[in-house]
Amino acid sequence: MPRVVVDVMPKPEILDPQGKAVHGALPRLGFTGVTDVRQGKRFELEFTGEVTAEVLAEVEKMAETLLSNPVIENYAVRVEQ
Amino acid sequence: MPRVVVDVMPKPEILDPQGKAVHGALPRLGFTGVTDVRQGKRFELEFTGEVTAEVLAEVEKMAETLLSNPVIENYAVRVEQ
Repeated sequence: MPRVVVDVMPKPEILDPQGKAVHGALPRLGFTGVTDVRQGKRFELEFTGEVTAEVLAEVEKMAETLLSNPVIENYAVRVEQ
Repeated sequence: MPRVVVDVMPKPEILDPQGKAVHGALPRLGFTGVTDVRQGKRFELEFTGEVTAEVLAEVEKMAETLLSNPVIENYAVRVEQ
């Protein structure tokens, strides 16, 4: 079944308190070497038919209007098998 | 800069109310053809040095202990350029 993945991440210039919290917890758990953590969202959309260019254009619109807040977040759309 | 991405998704048998809410909103916004939506988390971890097999093994441990709840979530670790 074809699946389209939309990754939504906070823009680089936007503060990411969830990522900061994870980053702060890592040394306390014994993990070192990580210089930064950003946390975002991942959406998996299932389709019955084929994923055409039109379907991907629709998903771009979904990402922009519903799945992300374009003021503070970037998104990326891709097909996954 | 090497970046390791950890995708955390609710297990298929686990109810996903956020994904259901997104799925329910799509037809109201005029989007049709999507049969299911699952919502999960995406973590981007930045490292200064090279991402060796040892680093990836550490990230697997982070994913299992901090980034996901293995009872209800699956995770996937991958390197992204």
